[in-house]
Amino acid sequence: MVNSGLEGIVAAATTLSHVDGERGELIIGGYDVGELAQRATFEETTWLLWHGALPSAPDLAAFRADLAAEREVSASTLALLRECARQAVDPMDALRIAAGTISLSADSAIAIVAKFPTIVAAFWRLGRGAEPIAPRADLGHAANFLYMVTGEVPDPERERGLETYLNTVVDHGLNASTFTARVITSTGSDLVSAVVGAVGALKGPLHGGAPGPALDMVFEIGEASRAEAILRRKIEGGEKLMGFGHRVYKVRDPRADVLAVAAERMFTRAGDMSLYRLARAVEAEAIRLLEEYKPGRRLQTNVEFYTALLLHGLGLGTPLFTPTFAVSRVSGWIAHAMEQKRANRIIRPQSEYTGPRGLTWVDIEDRATP
Amino acid sequence: MVNSGLEGIVAAATTLSHVDGERGELIIGGYDVGELAQRATFEETTWLLWHGALPSAPDLAAFRADLAAEREVSASTLALLRECARQAVDPMDALRIAAGTISLSADSAIAIVAKFPTIVAAFWRLGRGAEPIAPRADLGHAANFLYMVTGEVPDPERERGLETYLNTVVDHGLNASTFTARVITSTGSDLVSAVVGAVGALKGPLHGGAPGPALDMVFEIGEASRAEAILRRKIEGGEKLMGFGHRVYKVRDPRADVLAVAAERMFTRAGDMSLYRLARAVEAEAIRLLEEYKPGRRLQTNVEFYTALLLHGLGLGTPLFTPTFAVSRVSGWIAHAMEQKRANRIIRPQSEYTGPRGLTWVDIEDRATP
Repeated sequence: MVNSGLEGIVAAATTLSHVDGERGELIIGGYDVGELAQRATFEETTWLLWHGALPSAPDLAAFRADLAAEREVSASTLALLRECARQAVDPMDALRIAAGTISLSADSAIAIVAKFPTIVAAFWRLGRGAEPIAPRADLGHAANFLYMVTGEVPDPERERGLETYLNTVVDHGLNASTFTARVITSTGSDLVSAVVGAVGALKGPLHGGAPGPALDMVFEIGEASRAEAILRRKIEGGEKLMGFGHRVYKVRDPRADVLAVAAERMFTRAGDMSLYRLARAVEAEAIRLLEEYKPGRRLQTNVEFYTALLLHGLGLGTPLFTPTFAVSRVSGWIAHAMEQKRANRIIRPQSEYTGPRGLTWVDIEDRATP
Repeated sequence: MVNSGLEGIVAAATTLSHVDGERGELIIGGYDVGELAQRATFEETTWLLWHGALPSAPDLAAFRADLAAEREVSASTLALLRECARQAVDPMDALRIAAGTISLSADSAIAIVAKFPTIVAAFWRLGRGAEPIAPRADLGHAANFLYMVTGEVPDPERERGLETYLNTVVDHGLNASTFTARVITSTGSDLVSAVVGAVGALKGPLHGGAPGPALDMVFEIGEASRAEAILRRKIEGGEKLMGFGHRVYKVRDPRADVLAVAAERMFTRAGDMSLYRLARAVEAEAIRLLEEYKPGRRLQTNVEFYTALLLHGLGLGTPLFTPTFAVSRVSGWIAHAMEQKRANRIIRPQSEYTGPRGLTWVDIEDRATP
């Protein structure tokens, strides 16, 4: 029997995260995502995944310093990002290409996590004709990323907003990019190879998702009073509503809740409350109409809807959404690679051959021409 | 139940290749490997995998021309290879890094296959302080690769030897690198991403294999009369004999047979017969002793043993062995990516969570210090 999506096949035991789609629960390193994401810095969450417990104060201080010391990328990585920008390659291709060159200067887990934001921010700026901004070692991981993108040290609400986002999406069971990292690691290969493969997988539209279009829909609707008419037209026209429904979650995606709270807090104190209120109105209307048109399908808000709202509120442009996802998830990929290494078995499923057999060679002059 | 190696799980239906480990059979595109490998050019084998049948004469001529036209790599790829050589990175890392940049100029299947030999040969030469040699469009894929490595157009026996090697290892079911390419493709990602992930997986010592050590053992033995004593010492010392035994094949690896014939032919007409005779004597003695010390284990010569002999005879240095494997296998990876795309389902297995649950947040000042 061919199991082409490997659905229901358990390919790894993990202590990193647990997704319960029926109950709408996500555990990260032992904590419910809601318990962890709003309190931790991203450095603490990364440490938790790599070491199995939250860091002590001295461990955290050392870890923050180690990460900060590794933020710079090499001159050849920067040259390549310039070339990527000149050719306007896809942002995830630019990240994959530049991340691949980390092997030229380092191959440690810390160096990889430290350099991802530098690469993403540099490519973003180069693509808009601006010079990259060098990282600042006195800022935390999240604040420094926003600083390298915008050139401004973010206020505490924005910093907290990004920390919460990064914590929320850092790990999510054996998704396709994480599984890719584990398959590559299972051959005994190195961390950079595993992470580069995972970036390539995350790039795929069936995986990395589409937070951009979810936001576009909110902007298209523009004001709450237009939500019902526009959403009805989309649903009746057979259009998929971006930001709703998930392959695994049959109830509300727990990450959407965490990000909605984070967005509300950030927009209340540092942003545009009208956009936040519009998004909530669109969400409520969409869920009501999805239940009306597709009763029993239980289509709920997914992580993309509030990702878009939150990242937009942080001042990140839409092309930065998936690369920013990668800035977070790379800590999870590395944690899975570490876990795979500790109890390794090469991952090599089987295939079923359905082609011909026993063909005999025909010389080229005797082959039929088309 | 956790199935950490995915052994026995059928993850794809394929018409590309079939490995029967019990019977020692390998089918490639409908042909027994022995029927195909010694007759086809690598261009014909690649076409067979991508199109499901051997090409007609005009199709083959056009395909050869298309490949030849795409051999050059960009200036930024070459600059990166210079940097890789300066830093003496692992040859497979250099291939992964440079292959990643193919997105800067192209993303077609033909461009990827065409540029792999150029990258491998350029890095090899740069690593030895020599300048890369530009590809020649008038040579076939295999002959041009040898030309770019050595600077000499190979004689027909060497060209044939390399064609046979490339055909023999082009595809082999769902090995870890091929599976990586399929997982990445399953997200809707692009060919370069799939191939770069696969190179990262092939780099792993549990997958890309170790044809180098198999040859080292033959050189260490030096003459047939010393084989028994040295091999006994190794086996009694618990050393694994490189080039013998395979996870899948329980009888002689059919690729070893094809490569042994190819090596004999090449060494007879264009090489050093004494090395060939020594290798055969070492092989015979190794199989005899493995049966004596490990009866019933059926440890047989695997593909690495004759790969090493053949590639060495072609004048390729040991660090080129795994990259040359990739020069062949990339056609198979792309064929699998194409097949995955035609009947896609995102590959997302499950994990079993074995970590803690319901932990509550502890502020940093309240955490135990180590």
